[in-house]
Amino acid sequence: MKTRAALAVKAGEKLEVTDVNLEGPKAGEVLVEIKATGICHTDEFTLSGADPEGIFPAILGHEGAGVVAEVGPGVTSLKPGDHVIPLYTPECRECDYCLNPKTNLCQAIRSTQGQGLMPDGTSRFTTLDGDPIFHYMGTSTFSNFTVLPEIALAKVRPDAPFDKICYIGCGVTTGIGAVMNTAKVEIGSRCVVFGLGGIGLNVIQGLRLAGADQIVGVDLNPDKKAMGERFGMTDFVNPAEVEGDLVPYLVDLTKGGADYSFDATGNVDVMRAALECAHKGWGESIIIGVAPAGAEISTRPFQLVTGRVWRGTAFGGARGRTDVPKIVDWYMEGKIEIDPMITHTMGLDQINDGFDLMHKGESIRSVVLY
Amino acid sequence: MKTRAALAVKAGEKLEVTDVNLEGPKAGEVLVEIKATGICHTDEFTLSGADPEGIFPAILGHEGAGVVAEVGPGVTSLKPGDHVIPLYTPECRECDYCLNPKTNLCQAIRSTQGQGLMPDGTSRFTTLDGDPIFHYMGTSTFSNFTVLPEIALAKVRPDAPFDKICYIGCGVTTGIGAVMNTAKVEIGSRCVVFGLGGIGLNVIQGLRLAGADQIVGVDLNPDKKAMGERFGMTDFVNPAEVEGDLVPYLVDLTKGGADYSFDATGNVDVMRAALECAHKGWGESIIIGVAPAGAEISTRPFQLVTGRVWRGTAFGGARGRTDVPKIVDWYMEGKIEIDPMITHTMGLDQINDGFDLMHKGESIRSVVLY
Ligand SMILES: [Zn+2]
Ligand SMILES: [Zn+2]
Ligand SMILES: [Zn+2]
Ligand SMILES: [Zn+2]
Repeated sequence: MKTRAALAVKAGEKLEVTDVNLEGPKAGEVLVEIKATGICHTDEFTLSGADPEGIFPAILGHEGAGVVAEVGPGVTSLKPGDHVIPLYTPECRECDYCLNPKTNLCQAIRSTQGQGLMPDGTSRFTTLDGDPIFHYMGTSTFSNFTVLPEIALAKVRPDAPFDKICYIGCGVTTGIGAVMNTAKVEIGSRCVVFGLGGIGLNVIQGLRLAGADQIVGVDLNPDKKAMGERFGMTDFVNPAEVEGDLVPYLVDLTKGGADYSFDATGNVDVMRAALECAHKGWGESIIIGVAPAGAEISTRPFQLVTGRVWRGTAFGGARGRTDVPKIVDWYMEGKIEIDPMITHTMGLDQINDGFDLMHKGESIRSVVLY
Repeated sequence: MKTRAALAVKAGEKLEVTDVNLEGPKAGEVLVEIKATGICHTDEFTLSGADPEGIFPAILGHEGAGVVAEVGPGVTSLKPGDHVIPLYTPECRECDYCLNPKTNLCQAIRSTQGQGLMPDGTSRFTTLDGDPIFHYMGTSTFSNFTVLPEIALAKVRPDAPFDKICYIGCGVTTGIGAVMNTAKVEIGSRCVVFGLGGIGLNVIQGLRLAGADQIVGVDLNPDKKAMGERFGMTDFVNPAEVEGDLVPYLVDLTKGGADYSFDATGNVDVMRAALECAHKGWGESIIIGVAPAGAEISTRPFQLVTGRVWRGTAFGGARGRTDVPKIVDWYMEGKIEIDPMITHTMGLDQINDGFDLMHKGESIRSVVLY
């Protein structure tokens, strides 16, 4: 079949909206009609050429929501008409990782996914000239129709709006999951969140949900204060306005240090500050942001020997098929908010405008509606 | 009273064995007759001048065992004749840290202890000329008699031999505690221990006690192999004999990476290798060794984002008054071994020989008998 898609032809260029060929689903695969997709910094990271593992030409996009159009042989958990959210971290429920309760990093299809291919080692997308196009993160939601492995789809309730729940496929789950699955924040905790973009705001609402006593947001942009407060932030700190060093200031503000701190910036210096503002004896710091290739984190080992713990999280430690439907329920029940974070919507033809808004820092999330 | 002690007159010089004056115990303090004391790398670290917080003149020593000689006003948990092990990490059972189950870093007397003083801000030791001598780590076990706060003494069973259980005051508890309290190693785990000195051997016997399936010891000295095996090591790796990089070799040997890895070297490059040989998704690495002043650990944040956890431990996460008596029991019951680690004993007059043996790498532990 033909489908309309935004094609990433090469690194550093704008996306090209065009028709492409899409083969139907093979065994264990599912054809999904994408109804909405968010535009994320991770797409931008790859499109810019900064991602050393980026492959082109490819169809990017990993924050989608849609409807099952057709299932391939052997697919048992989904049928046409089911509403689904694509998962760039799949959940096979059979590999050593899925069977270990300490991790969500399913390895069932990791190597082919990393090569931009379906699990059988081929791509379903080609140009109209017949040249191959790579998949991206196993999802490729910048295409109106896309093919995914069954294990990379979370089935969600049919009454949830696509243009909002698409964001649960990435930022919402990453932020809330970092609180819930990785940090396992207890009621009454004092917490610090660095970076109040889309991920940071979701960490904040996760902390509110977890019953944190103090939720400090740190960002260089004073315009972030109002939005942070809307999601539960109790204290705003602009490092540019702090006299002296930021770390002792935050330790003081949190009465001895953060029980949990979160980096949602991807800046390795900020990651260090996040660790060092954690409470002596028990403070844990969680790295969420993706650092530039080659960047390294550092600290004195004394910081760890005196009880701080350094962790990271991917997709919020969530097991997508199990956890994403729950988070959709929480959204529908009003336990979490997404609407104010979707600041812009547009058609696929305007997708490059969404990237421009991100560059200018004008959007939290732009969503493409098909 | 007068007591015989090994005095650290200044950094970089040999200890001077001499009589010193010792004041009796004040409120909340206890006079202890030390019967035996180990000589530890930490004493050497301070004596050498490498410890930026070292203060002189001082009476070093922190791995002791002895008998209560006299108690000061208000002391209720100890009486003359009780057998005790001094604790450089006290346990007041009342501060915010003691009341938080996540840490053992009692802060009740931290600031005065760091200044080489008793909790009232004064020293009990003076030279025969009346000049002040500082305490060390709150213990100063290189003196036949010493004064300690009540909260810095673990009461132990009277039938345990001083010349062996003194080592429970530091290395034994640090190593076994790192396994038990900090890593919380599960039965069946695969583990890697870097550095097979006194601490590393105790990590190994802790892992044996915890039911680990694989216990890999890593050391540049091939002579360490036999002793490691005696304590439960299943695989010995000499990095000098590994072709190619050590980390992938260890990942392969442990079938994907260590569930838990331990650095007992104090070398920041080794700490990095220890983290990076931990299993993707769930491997935890625990820093035990003390790094040189100013040294920093580094890694790519990707290591943490893909599920590895970086921790540290001090005194094995043990709460001394509670945990040390249990470890003494385990020794007396044969659950753990200490005797083979006490490779040399000597009188106080020969204490400098003990430091020489350590420098030459000929001893695991030298113990001074009073
Ligand atoms: Zn994303
Ligand atoms: Zn799996
Ligand atoms: Zn020691
Ligand atoms: Zn305490």
